[in-house]
Amino acid sequence: MSILFEKTLNKAIPTPLYFQLKEIMLDYILHNHDNLEVPIPTEHEISQHFQISRPTVRQAINELVFEGYLYRIKGKGTFISRPKIQQEFLKVLDSFNNEIKSKGMLPSTKVLGITTVTSDKPVSKALRIPEGEKVIKLQRLRFANEDPIVFVDTYLPYTYCQFLLNKNLEQESLYELIERKLTCRISKATRKLEATLAGDYEAQLLNVKHGAPIQLIKSITFLSNGIPIEYSHAKYRGDRNSFTFEMSR
Amino acid sequence: MSILFEKTLNKAIPTPLYFQLKEIMLDYILHNHDNLEVPIPTEHEISQHFQISRPTVRQAINELVFEGYLYRIKGKGTFISRPKIQQEFLKVLDSFNNEIKSKGMLPSTKVLGITTVTSDKPVSKALRIPEGEKVIKLQRLRFANEDPIVFVDTYLPYTYCQFLLNKNLEQESLYELIERKLTCRISKATRKLEATLAGDYEAQLLNVKHGAPIQLIKSITFLSNGIPIEYSHAKYRGDRNSFTFEMSR
Repeated sequence: MSILFEKTLNKAIPTPLYFQLKEIMLDYILHNHDNLEVPIPTEHEISQHFQISRPTVRQAINELVFEGYLYRIKGKGTFISRPKIQQEFLKVLDSFNNEIKSKGMLPSTKVLGITTVTSDKPVSKALRIPEGEKVIKLQRLRFANEDPIVFVDTYLPYTYCQFLLNKNLEQESLYELIERKLTCRISKATRKLEATLAGDYEAQLLNVKHGAPIQLIKSITFLSNGIPIEYSHAKYRGDRNSFTFEMSR
Repeated sequence: MSILFEKTLNKAIPTPLYFQLKEIMLDYILHNHDNLEVPIPTEHEISQHFQISRPTVRQAINELVFEGYLYRIKGKGTFISRPKIQQEFLKVLDSFNNEIKSKGMLPSTKVLGITTVTSDKPVSKALRIPEGEKVIKLQRLRFANEDPIVFVDTYLPYTYCQFLLNKNLEQESLYELIERKLTCRISKATRKLEATLAGDYEAQLLNVKHGAPIQLIKSITFLSNGIPIEYSHAKYRGDRNSFTFEMSR
């Protein structure tokens, strides 16, 4: 409660009291993400503290719940939601690790499998190789501060990338390894986005419910010499990620 | 059935069999859109072909139905859904009408409401106007070939856009009207994407089930003089839309 004390309501200005309270609470929420297990003060406590009516407090809390900043657990209280990670994934072509680090979080990766498979139609089309040719299939689960954020299937042409079979892809960056080995920059990507739902497998991996929203992003990544080097399907937790970018006409 | 024969399941890897089957079927689905009137093979046929159990097949089919790739007709079988509209919305800043027309479909718009409201915090922040100032709120449902595709809430600054209150926005293009009136081009947008789920209201409008996937796109659109002229929340049916674009490093 102590942090709420820092600001006060101004009953002399025309801005509605509930709205002033909402702003104070939003400020509190945005600066208290280290305190996610403790409920926020009750309606009663807040109304006592600011000497305002319960309906005014309720209106502020209701709007914050509706907007996703807060959530209620019956019998336990009202809690602060974890913030969405504002991914720049669509703005800057960067590795997952750099992206998460730039947000002040600790990235980590679990390799679920790396195998050699034969290329099917979509993979062949993406990587511009004949169907049936060997490709490396890499499955990874990626974390920010130990929370699973995205489940990625990556297909890589065997010819260029077989050296990856012996690498520790939980410790080393895929992009860095490829750039160093092929002495060529990764320079361009095409992405396709779809909203979908978590099936049983994704739900289990990403620690969400079956039917939770998933942001599916299919990417083809190119080397600066124009060769497609990576085709991936990334399934992001919809409740933990948003993606921003700019565009011109 | 012949196309399904191309791939096989790998019982030696840790990826669940149902998930491997689902990926094989998805590949089949995505390359058989010319065959929408013929049901896919039955559960029995698929389980025989791959030598796997019926529940495994059912789980794969159920998830594909759940995600909208397949649908069932009682007594007739399971069919492939129509393909997603590949929106260039993230690549080219264009009107919905031009976008849909360029895909060979007929666009139309239903105006659900146009009113004057006071600007709240997110709207004020987006449009860079003081809170409490008048804004126009426009609610539209937009169709491709009579199928509802997207439900859009648009906020426009009253100062520049009050002339729109008298316009027929089902027949005329919002962007064209604004550009003509203000003699200024619409030139830039920032977009934020989130995967979310349909609530009761969106489900009813977009003709999907409660909990269906929704691609939410929040946009701020700017005139060439830098003034933000439009803030919108567009809720696209996840089962009918995908969004593609390119990016460089």
